[in-house]
Amino acid sequence: MPLNRDDLLELDRQDPLADHRDAFDIPEGVIYFDGNSLGALPKAAKGRVREVVEQQWGQGLIRSWNEADWINLPQRLGAKIAPLIGAQPHEVISADSTSVNLFKLAAAALRIQQQTSRERRVILSEPGNFPTDLYMLQGLCDFAAGEPELVTEPADSLIDRIDESTALVVLTHVHYKSGRLHDMTAITRRAHECGALVLWDLSHSTGAVPVELNDVGADFAIGCGYKYLNGGPGAPAFMFVAERHLSTLQQPLSGWFGHESPFDMRDDYAPAPDIRRVLTGTTSVVAASLFEVGLDRFRDVDMFALRKKSMSLTEHFIQLVEERCPNAGFELVSPREPQQRGSQVSFAHPEGYAIVQALIDRGVIGDYRSPDILRFGFAPLYVQYVDLWGAVEHLADIMCNRLWENPQYRHRRQVT
Amino acid sequence: MPLNRDDLLELDRQDPLADHRDAFDIPEGVIYFDGNSLGALPKAAKGRVREVVEQQWGQGLIRSWNEADWINLPQRLGAKIAPLIGAQPHEVISADSTSVNLFKLAAAALRIQQQTSRERRVILSEPGNFPTDLYMLQGLCDFAAGEPELVTEPADSLIDRIDESTALVVLTHVHYKSGRLHDMTAITRRAHECGALVLWDLSHSTGAVPVELNDVGADFAIGCGYKYLNGGPGAPAFMFVAERHLSTLQQPLSGWFGHESPFDMRDDYAPAPDIRRVLTGTTSVVAASLFEVGLDRFRDVDMFALRKKSMSLTEHFIQLVEERCPNAGFELVSPREPQQRGSQVSFAHPEGYAIVQALIDRGVIGDYRSPDILRFGFAPLYVQYVDLWGAVEHLADIMCNRLWENPQYRHRRQVT
Repeated sequence: MPLNRDDLLELDRQDPLADHRDAFDIPEGVIYFDGNSLGALPKAAKGRVREVVEQQWGQGLIRSWNEADWINLPQRLGAKIAPLIGAQPHEVISADSTSVNLFKLAAAALRIQQQTSRERRVILSEPGNFPTDLYMLQGLCDFAAGEPELVTEPADSLIDRIDESTALVVLTHVHYKSGRLHDMTAITRRAHECGALVLWDLSHSTGAVPVELNDVGADFAIGCGYKYLNGGPGAPAFMFVAERHLSTLQQPLSGWFGHESPFDMRDDYAPAPDIRRVLTGTTSVVAASLFEVGLDRFRDVDMFALRKKSMSLTEHFIQLVEERCPNAGFELVSPREPQQRGSQVSFAHPEGYAIVQALIDRGVIGDYRSPDILRFGFAPLYVQYVDLWGAVEHLADIMCNRLWENPQYRHRRQVT
Repeated sequence: MPLNRDDLLELDRQDPLADHRDAFDIPEGVIYFDGNSLGALPKAAKGRVREVVEQQWGQGLIRSWNEADWINLPQRLGAKIAPLIGAQPHEVISADSTSVNLFKLAAAALRIQQQTSRERRVILSEPGNFPTDLYMLQGLCDFAAGEPELVTEPADSLIDRIDESTALVVLTHVHYKSGRLHDMTAITRRAHECGALVLWDLSHSTGAVPVELNDVGADFAIGCGYKYLNGGPGAPAFMFVAERHLSTLQQPLSGWFGHESPFDMRDDYAPAPDIRRVLTGTTSVVAASLFEVGLDRFRDVDMFALRKKSMSLTEHFIQLVEERCPNAGFELVSPREPQQRGSQVSFAHPEGYAIVQALIDRGVIGDYRSPDILRFGFAPLYVQYVDLWGAVEHLADIMCNRLWENPQYRHRRQVT
């Protein structure tokens, strides 16, 4: 029997995470399926940013580095991210952008390998990985000593490509476009069998798909603050370094916030004895404080309930689209098996760009990814089951009435 | 005749910049001489941050990348910084931290040199340069291909140390500790005569000491957003690339925001044709928006009036300290000649740390720099002449009554 609106309302009534919705500001008339690109505003962020700007900065001024504990923001945020990714609190820290952090940890991994072998020079990733990951690795290989080399291998055969030449495997756990999950356990094990290290990009996982970094034995990870963690536009990112690497890790962006004693103002760099050694410049205090509000929302969240809701949302969305738009030309790009899928659903359609614009015009916000992908992300903390119904009502109307043919929807704009 | 309070009040009455004071939130009872470390809060920042968080993020969500023009923040801010440093608008951009930006541009400079000579490998700086600059250069030399080498030479003899082996000179224009100014014109000319490039760190200049980058022929510059530019704690920093280097510049932190077409999501990096090629990750939107408020304050400021007031403030402060605390043991560390001094005054004193703490306790906020420096920064937009009087009243009292002997002032804390 096809799904109907009442089925979805019933799922909302049974949802153990339903109360979180009210902690976010979702604009009237908007169905927001783009929390995988920019998470929604936690209501508590409004008061926090006012406090940080007006009180801590305005009144406390320079004293707030101590009195408001700005100095420990990176570690404090890291400790709050740790339980979401199966890490220990002292293995995680927040700073900079995902791109910059990838550079730091990939360079650190190469350095570890260079100390034992000059032959192990390959960084292995997949074609179609999130672009900035590939771009940063290209920049690193182009500039770093030791002639590192970036090799890409499609996901299906990647695990077999790992060998004695592999220094580092860099993959995004949940693929940004398809939502496909990599098997972290198998890839990490295979890499370690070959003597390679592994760096996981968790940008599309953290806050939606529970990850157990230490259970799988990951070496390094990075992730994004502004997607499912709701840290605000351009929020700082984070880094994970497994405890076994912490005391020896060397990274090239060795700025003063990573120094063992930054305010001694010595001429020679000496890394902090702990995770702070991956820090570089001054903490972006206002941005980090906003990020903390997003993280605090996860404090009492059962990550398994979160994953269960995420899988259920994506499953029901696929079912609804296929039931309500059966001959509209949508091809499911995401894995059909929920265990192999992150918290998003992607469909390919030749008119994908225009369809996404028509949806946005009606308040249904997903996004488009080149060349033909409609992408819908489901942040389990604030997306309701009934939102699925509303969104697919609009989608069905757009497809039945070919509303995407409207020329205003076909003009290409930048969308991030 | 010794200065008195009325003289200073008269200077305030004649000050053409006096009206700017009211645009800043200076806490009641505070005399703030630490704007060289963290600038004060522009009152307009309160409304702006509320708009960005509540409206642009909360209501606009992902649409604000276009509709609120988040995507162009880095260039827009750069264009507003340009007139303060004698650059063209398209030569400046805001992003990341000063430390990260130094790495990008120093690596880019090395790359330029490597294309013509493998022998030109020396990066020249001075001992006692701002620590993060030296640390970042150490990291760069340690990791980069081509065996670059960091050499430091004291300021007095540095210009003579530039030779055919010098790839790049990296100096901070105004020294963070002493306030001493480097002769940008002479050093840049000498470097170019030897085939070297020059990267100026303007962290302690921009917004207080006018700089003419293009007049002196500088190649690269970086600077800080949270000091005299009042961008907020940990504000994004900025980069300058002379037009002649823009179209060929290559930098290693080649993230998606520096790509010629980031939302095409291609696998291969291709740099933007313009200054955006020095960008890396996603713009920190809230932080950049706050920075813009600080920059907008400079829109109608005559930089020569600013410099004149800055020199007058520092001159009168030195005079007052020497008149009111004649035998207190203060040794002027900053140059006595105002033309050779930035907008700060530093004194050495064996009890410097405790004296600074005693001052802070009385609301006179300067800072301490290891090993014995009391540092006072004068942000000409909001420091009043009469503030000098109030501060030195407290200082004289502390010194006459040996209040710094109080044990609570002698316990070392972190101060940034």
